[in-house]
Amino acid sequence: MKINHNYQKLPGSYLFSTIAKKVAAYGKEHPEAEIIRLGIGDVTLPIAPSIVKAMHEAVEEMGHAETFRGYAPDLGYDFLREAIAKTDYQRLGCEVFADEIFISDGAKCDCGNIQELFSAEAKIAVCDPVYPVYVDSNVMAGRTGEWDETFGRWSNVIYLPCTKENGFVPELPKETPDLIYLCNPNNPTGTTLNREQLKVWVDYANAHDAVIMYDAAYEAYIQEEDVPHSIFAIDGARSCAVEFRSFSKNAGFTGVRLGFTVIPKELVREGVSLHSMWARRHGTKYNGAPYIQQKAGLAVYGDEGQREIREQIRYYMRNAKVIYEGLKKLGYEVFGGVNSPYVWLHTGERSSWEFFDELLDKAHVVGTPGSGFGPEGEHYFRLTGFGSYENTVRAVERMKGL
Amino acid sequence: MKINHNYQKLPGSYLFSTIAKKVAAYGKEHPEAEIIRLGIGDVTLPIAPSIVKAMHEAVEEMGHAETFRGYAPDLGYDFLREAIAKTDYQRLGCEVFADEIFISDGAKCDCGNIQELFSAEAKIAVCDPVYPVYVDSNVMAGRTGEWDETFGRWSNVIYLPCTKENGFVPELPKETPDLIYLCNPNNPTGTTLNREQLKVWVDYANAHDAVIMYDAAYEAYIQEEDVPHSIFAIDGARSCAVEFRSFSKNAGFTGVRLGFTVIPKELVREGVSLHSMWARRHGTKYNGAPYIQQKAGLAVYGDEGQREIREQIRYYMRNAKVIYEGLKKLGYEVFGGVNSPYVWLHTGERSSWEFFDELLDKAHVVGTPGSGFGPEGEHYFRLTGFGSYENTVRAVERMKGL
Repeated sequence: MKINHNYQKLPGSYLFSTIAKKVAAYGKEHPEAEIIRLGIGDVTLPIAPSIVKAMHEAVEEMGHAETFRGYAPDLGYDFLREAIAKTDYQRLGCEVFADEIFISDGAKCDCGNIQELFSAEAKIAVCDPVYPVYVDSNVMAGRTGEWDETFGRWSNVIYLPCTKENGFVPELPKETPDLIYLCNPNNPTGTTLNREQLKVWVDYANAHDAVIMYDAAYEAYIQEEDVPHSIFAIDGARSCAVEFRSFSKNAGFTGVRLGFTVIPKELVREGVSLHSMWARRHGTKYNGAPYIQQKAGLAVYGDEGQREIREQIRYYMRNAKVIYEGLKKLGYEVFGGVNSPYVWLHTGERSSWEFFDELLDKAHVVGTPGSGFGPEGEHYFRLTGFGSYENTVRAVERMKGL
Repeated sequence: MKINHNYQKLPGSYLFSTIAKKVAAYGKEHPEAEIIRLGIGDVTLPIAPSIVKAMHEAVEEMGHAETFRGYAPDLGYDFLREAIAKTDYQRLGCEVFADEIFISDGAKCDCGNIQELFSAEAKIAVCDPVYPVYVDSNVMAGRTGEWDETFGRWSNVIYLPCTKENGFVPELPKETPDLIYLCNPNNPTGTTLNREQLKVWVDYANAHDAVIMYDAAYEAYIQEEDVPHSIFAIDGARSCAVEFRSFSKNAGFTGVRLGFTVIPKELVREGVSLHSMWARRHGTKYNGAPYIQQKAGLAVYGDEGQREIREQIRYYMRNAKVIYEGLKKLGYEVFGGVNSPYVWLHTGERSSWEFFDELLDKAHVVGTPGSGFGPEGEHYFRLTGFGSYENTVRAVERMKGL
């Protein structure tokens, strides 16, 4: 075998590509339908003024010999790494240093690539349901065994069910995983682990030599005091956790592209520093995030930038509330939406895809079928607060009598 | 084994990181030394005016609700894919279609990631010397066997020597590889394969079911008529080749970040389309190149953009000529420099690193040791035309009597 046949094991296409195709086909057949998209986790508010200003300045710098910048440092410019360490971590009392921060073009790439640091024998555990990239990237690396069509599960993946029955708090697994993917606040359920619940996992990982892959892409939406903004707010995390962060959801960078990964220097497995391994990967397979984007990232940490992005987050959270409260009134069982822009609703008797089709056809609203995030997501459905306020209100209106 | 121990097989650090550290240390010890950097292949001219204008416009669009763009299409915006297909391929008579072009944040990432589409058993062949990313990314995937310190070679890699003895034209290997990496014009030697020489490889790959990974990052520097700008100018390439292209060297995007990969739909191995596999990889592990950068890429194909970048290329090629002619006068054996910004010189008795140290110490000029590109690069040295004209002239002056 000379090609990587693991790719063929992936059932169907990537979830959001499938949705995009379905919606495009529907739109073509029904050109009159005003479709409201609350499906993909894409933002809609424009980039904030102080960030736009910073990008203009950086573009201008690139156009003059005295200020032109070529290759960026592999791991990111110090100005950004320092701003992140200070604002996102040290200010909150988390011990994270600038040289433990790896700047990249986004958390999706980092989440997808991180598994390369581990052997094909490493066993993964994932929350079910969860963001599909964690599993899919491990499928491509041949780490997940065989696909079981009946149960919609991989034979060699440890699933951690997160359902309304357990309050969306995963139980510790019976079998010990090497890698544990946690997304907090969770995508798609919008639910969270609080400090105490997360501490359980940190202690477990340290006790079992596992590594937690902690995706904190939605931390900016946390409203409640006892939900940690970083896994490094938990004692012991420095020896067992990697954290992924994104500028996509807090500052609207989905089309700008910027993210970062934190790997503490204490994180060592089999005598090898994962920090060094990731640095080597950056040096060999990556060429640094663009200067323009890194200056945009720096502007996010400015006083004005912080004020502006908080306003955007308030806007999206108001939408999430409209959906949450509106659907509750319509009799749906709803979850999430409090520390997250995602509202997770139960579809009752209908399957997730049946609900998707009906919602698109009758209400012209696009959401995301829960089953696309894992077998335990069946009979659930994700709606996002990332639309415009007006569209969000209209979408909920249209869902009456669905 | 739970971590990927292949990473530890990599000897030392990535070549250019090592050079950067050496130069930084020297600069610290000799703060008075005016160091001229002709080492790393980084450009120095600022981004051209029409491209800067396009980026300003795109930044402005991102700042307004009506024109804001979120996630880009996974594989790139059609406007850019179409401009590339038309200008870089169809205009030259190459059969390449827009939907065979995958936009990314750079050729280094693509060159490094492409090996994922193949199994761990696939055997690679590389020119020796060549850009280190091809081998290193395969080392990380466990495809290269063991490192032999004495010969500076991997036990399971097929090396294709390219030296002054064979005119830098690699011979067909005795053992059949699955993947053949070709870089044309070659980095680091600056030498080229002409149409006829490349046709030999295309025919060989088709006859042996091998896939050619064709890195054309330097095609914009080609001056001679019989050197092809794309492998798709060669009959039969559509069934055996992948092509990597970069905006770094033709338009100075080393700090902007944009590149693309071409995978023809005819490229099928073991019944599987590599085009589909790469599309799946993009969908799962990548989130699209930034809108701002893709608009910058589009500007490269505008009339003004084309005129501007040609002027920059002329500027760098004049530098290459200064180095080539200057060193020849000084008695060096020199190669490349005609269809490439790289000049490859023979260091005589001195090893590549001895020459590096001496050049840095006595002339305060930074170059790249040939041995960093493969064992056959020993006793060679790379200098680049990417500096300023003034510095290039000074660097050659300083090399007198070295």
